[in-house]
Amino acid sequence: MSELKNDRYLRALLRQPVDKTPVWVMRQAGRYLPEYREVRAKAGDFMTLCSTPEMACEVTLQPLRRFDLDAAIIFSDILTIPDAMGLGLHFVAGEGPKFEKVIQSAADISKLAVPDMEDSLGYVMDAIRLTRREIDGKVPLIGFSGSPWTLACYMVEGGSSKDFAKVKGMLFDAPEQMHALLDVLAKSVIAYLNAQIAAGAQSIMLFDTWGGALSQSNYQQFSLAYMQQIVAGLNRENEGRKVPVTLFTKGGGQWLELMAETGVDAVGLDWTTDMTLARQRVGDKVTLQGNMDPCVLYASPDRVEQEVASVLASFGQGNTGHVFNLGHGIHPTVDPENMTRLVDSVHALSEPYHQ
Amino acid sequence: MSELKNDRYLRALLRQPVDKTPVWVMRQAGRYLPEYREVRAKAGDFMTLCSTPEMACEVTLQPLRRFDLDAAIIFSDILTIPDAMGLGLHFVAGEGPKFEKVIQSAADISKLAVPDMEDSLGYVMDAIRLTRREIDGKVPLIGFSGSPWTLACYMVEGGSSKDFAKVKGMLFDAPEQMHALLDVLAKSVIAYLNAQIAAGAQSIMLFDTWGGALSQSNYQQFSLAYMQQIVAGLNRENEGRKVPVTLFTKGGGQWLELMAETGVDAVGLDWTTDMTLARQRVGDKVTLQGNMDPCVLYASPDRVEQEVASVLASFGQGNTGHVFNLGHGIHPTVDPENMTRLVDSVHALSEPYHQ
Repeated sequence: MSELKNDRYLRALLRQPVDKTPVWVMRQAGRYLPEYREVRAKAGDFMTLCSTPEMACEVTLQPLRRFDLDAAIIFSDILTIPDAMGLGLHFVAGEGPKFEKVIQSAADISKLAVPDMEDSLGYVMDAIRLTRREIDGKVPLIGFSGSPWTLACYMVEGGSSKDFAKVKGMLFDAPEQMHALLDVLAKSVIAYLNAQIAAGAQSIMLFDTWGGALSQSNYQQFSLAYMQQIVAGLNRENEGRKVPVTLFTKGGGQWLELMAETGVDAVGLDWTTDMTLARQRVGDKVTLQGNMDPCVLYASPDRVEQEVASVLASFGQGNTGHVFNLGHGIHPTVDPENMTRLVDSVHALSEPYHQ
Repeated sequence: MSELKNDRYLRALLRQPVDKTPVWVMRQAGRYLPEYREVRAKAGDFMTLCSTPEMACEVTLQPLRRFDLDAAIIFSDILTIPDAMGLGLHFVAGEGPKFEKVIQSAADISKLAVPDMEDSLGYVMDAIRLTRREIDGKVPLIGFSGSPWTLACYMVEGGSSKDFAKVKGMLFDAPEQMHALLDVLAKSVIAYLNAQIAAGAQSIMLFDTWGGALSQSNYQQFSLAYMQQIVAGLNRENEGRKVPVTLFTKGGGQWLELMAETGVDAVGLDWTTDMTLARQRVGDKVTLQGNMDPCVLYASPDRVEQEVASVLASFGQGNTGHVFNLGHGIHPTVDPENMTRLVDSVHALSEPYHQ
């Protein structure tokens, strides 16, 4: 493997000094880029794009050619695990992900097993191996998974949901059943992420997209507890370097202290959480990732720069412990020019904070 | 007017002692009730239901016949003000509210004026007057409005929105324009709620459905500041009684202290906020309303009762300062039997906390 030329992102996650605030963006390889849409069209359907290592590698690298980003994230989907469990993931235009089979009962759950990683998810590891070769040490590569609770939401609802009637119905009426489901998912996520690390992922993101739909007590029991198991089960070192782990619960701003106690290196913040207060609450324990409102990218480039300045100022002085990102994935209709301005202004405006 | 026979709800809002925890439920007059669906079908379209005082009164009273509720809320929609401003509110099945005219520019905003209350919204006041007569002092009647920011979201987006691209684009790119819009809306809401109070509303709810989509700083500038103006502009006394005001920002759990500073009597909590912590944070200043996850009503009646017990315990001992409610509106597909169990168990299980 080529030596890593830019380790700013990994250093910031480990709270080591950096010269500038590192920046990457959730969904940076995505629909807002015309070159992505071209590959996506060639692939035909979304799962072909995910499961063809050459294509996944290509779209992973695309944003690095345009923007001075400090990390790449392997192109994949958060629902590859349930797909590998045989649920039949597919995508319906305008409706998002759908499963052919839906989990409804204890019997359904008892049939689920931890998938064989190389057999059923080898395409993800192949994409990681290929991307590590192609990226040539330019920046680190992030591996990721959805959280067990988030996967369970899609598996029980059969797709996206507005009110989580089915999955919460199961949680409230049959908690033991829900725990059985989350248990097999947590074991699968551990195996999946360790396989990603072995294949070359240099940092791990755990996306808890729907943890924020729970009460605090249910969040602790049904989402956080399983993420803690995962953090404890990961091989945190590879190629002589620590593999840092970031945990992001969308809508989890009230529970930062709980997240920081899981042993993760970093906690992702959405834009509803004030960065200054977050730093006071947990900033001596973990790095903070975030947290510009993705909708700022609908405004003018000058306004984007102004908002970057404001997020940097809200984190404040101190030469480490902040990874700049949006508070959620970049929206598909923003102008890529605004992404250029975002990335460049993070680097330009953050220098004084690191002196 | 008949004397008020049950003032438990009003007393709890003013932090006066009560014998049991009062309970009402957001959207308690709604689609989960077959008798509501019957009137709704007779009305034809939703706006006819809202704007025909006899029908609005009838559906307002329906849940009181089934459940031992401590308050009624006038049946109406949060978007009556923009409709009265000429935007043409209508409802598309499965898509929610839509406006014929959308607010896109400074020119659009400059044409907006505070509507004449009796001319354009008299049907709401008529419904309140009629309901006060019909309710015969059984329980107090709540009046309500959407917050200026929430109204602005629908007016600029033209309906519901997933990512608030247009309204946040305006907020970030043209903040003065957004402030002009919020200013005319705040003035309208003050006039509207004062007219409701004059017509007989005995308590006021301000629904800030989309405040939680903002960053803390933008929440303060673009939502909370205008709600504070409204609170300051209301006639807080009528018929020799104080008219208490409750503020509910969905997803506002991180900002309870800010909400409690506005001069409101009560703050509504969604289920993501831990009631024990909320009470520690602001419970010496305001009453807390909430906060059971509405999805609990998808579970069994016994589970509902168990969760009621848990919410009551999380508020804890102390004979006032809690109004039981869901953390959001009741879902349209729940079984009304579960509502019976909810209301009855709040009363039965809360008595020991008030001794």
